[in-house]
Amino acid sequence: MRFVAGCAKHRCMKARILITLKNGVLDPQGKATEQVLAGLGFGGINDVRQGKYIELDLAENNPTNALNAVRAMCEKLLANTVIENYEIDLDE
Amino acid sequence: MRFVAGCAKHRCMKARILITLKNGVLDPQGKATEQVLAGLGFGGINDVRQGKYIELDLAENNPTNALNAVRAMCEKLLANTVIENYEIDLDE
Repeated sequence: MRFVAGCAKHRCMKARILITLKNGVLDPQGKATEQVLAGLGFGGINDVRQGKYIELDLAENNPTNALNAVRAMCEKLLANTVIENYEIDLDE
Repeated sequence: MRFVAGCAKHRCMKARILITLKNGVLDPQGKATEQVLAGLGFGGINDVRQGKYIELDLAENNPTNALNAVRAMCEKLLANTVIENYEIDLDE
């Protein structure tokens, strides 16, 4: 018998989620980063926007089910859909 | 004379930066997310890791210079390279 670290290939799926503020929503965190970068001498920065990145390891082998589950997670918890957009990228 | 909103195409570059915790570094934020998702009834989640996503608009038209500048920004400010990895993706 062989032990395989991590998830067995046929029962695991990785979802990468990018959550970003919608256009027009103020981003004070990004503005602060921009100012500090300017203060450190980095010129030529027009804009900085900051978002979140979430990686999920799912015990699921059906891409459609996985995508539906991750979309529901984003709608219910991970993203604030009033002010944020989300993008889901599934890795099989 | 024509006014073009945003940056003129030939003098602008977008950098997308993903900052993630290195393997083996504890991620309390990810663990909390995982527990809340389980509490909401989402089963089959093996792991959640949370990171940062930063978008930069750069007034630069040379990809090599832009990449070098963004790499320096990551090393000096954006990422804590002791515990974090970063990935840079340049859009021309």
